[in-house]
Amino acid sequence: MTESTELPMNIAPIGRVKNDLHAPMHSAMESDMPKAERIKQVREDHEKIRETVSELVIFDEWAELLDGIEAFSHILVLYWPHRLDPEKRKLRKVHPMGRKDLPEQGIFSTCSPGRPNPVLVTTAPLLERTGNVLKVKALEALDGSPIIDIKPYVAPYVGATDPKVPDWMIQLHEEIGIKIF
Amino acid sequence: MTESTELPMNIAPIGRVKNDLHAPMHSAMESDMPKAERIKQVREDHEKIRETVSELVIFDEWAELLDGIEAFSHILVLYWPHRLDPEKRKLRKVHPMGRKDLPEQGIFSTCSPGRPNPVLVTTAPLLERTGNVLKVKALEALDGSPIIDIKPYVAPYVGATDPKVPDWMIQLHEEIGIKIF
Repeated sequence: MTESTELPMNIAPIGRVKNDLHAPMHSAMESDMPKAERIKQVREDHEKIRETVSELVIFDEWAELLDGIEAFSHILVLYWPHRLDPEKRKLRKVHPMGRKDLPEQGIFSTCSPGRPNPVLVTTAPLLERTGNVLKVKALEALDGSPIIDIKPYVAPYVGATDPKVPDWMIQLHEEIGIKIF
Repeated sequence: MTESTELPMNIAPIGRVKNDLHAPMHSAMESDMPKAERIKQVREDHEKIRETVSELVIFDEWAELLDGIEAFSHILVLYWPHRLDPEKRKLRKVHPMGRKDLPEQGIFSTCSPGRPNPVLVTTAPLLERTGNVLKVKALEALDGSPIIDIKPYVAPYVGATDPKVPDWMIQLHEEIGIKIF
């Protein structure tokens, strides 16, 4: 075990997402649209995502590292939002889901893809593994997104008991038909 | 929104972990130790971690991005295991928690810190925010670890309903006194 005081933190894709999501979600974009129309857009986006099956195509050289993953019902997918405008990494505060009627929040308090290090994390049900390809449901990554890591979902490290979130987060999700607890 | 087909996926620390965990955990190391002794070591490590309070010291330039985080009971901490031997990023299969009596698993099926892109993710209870410093409990990061991202814990994206894990994972945790469900 070497002890290096300085890094580097270099990462490289281990695979790519293949799915039917080609356009960035409305919630990731600025908008002056009236509230009701905005909610409708975001709700439709989320309904589509929930039904989407994505293939996680892991590069052949890493396929063996998946051995055993079939025994887990859920996995964590770490990926990079490759179509994010790099300027968005400088965002400091945003209106959640682009909703100007809600107060701005610091980026670390939101799920915004635009953040200093846009490493996105989603827990997804694992439907199937075939060699180097995993099928998962309800992953919010666009087609072609580079995959950074796959981890098993193990509740003591990833889950939370009785989590609390602010009212704005509950409201946003109620409006688009998602139960937050 | 620009569409760049090629990356780069560059990341940089947004802060550092400050805590009392200075030695790498036993489960991250190879060992020929007898099973009972091995279990005792790993159990002691985990008991210490569960009681550890870590300070996440976010660099001043990013402090504002934390605004609103106090309203969440749990956060996701993404960090880099800076004391990991870079050679360990080439690992393909390991005995879970270094236990040679259990069958090898592909790295993506384990929580091993040694993986192609060692971006580690833990959900931690948020105890307190004071300016640019967050206090969290039970984070398994060593002192000095670079922090990559802070996200709010929002169950629909991070939680899992009725998760299944393989028997070896249940057994490992039972032996060290951690309930997995």
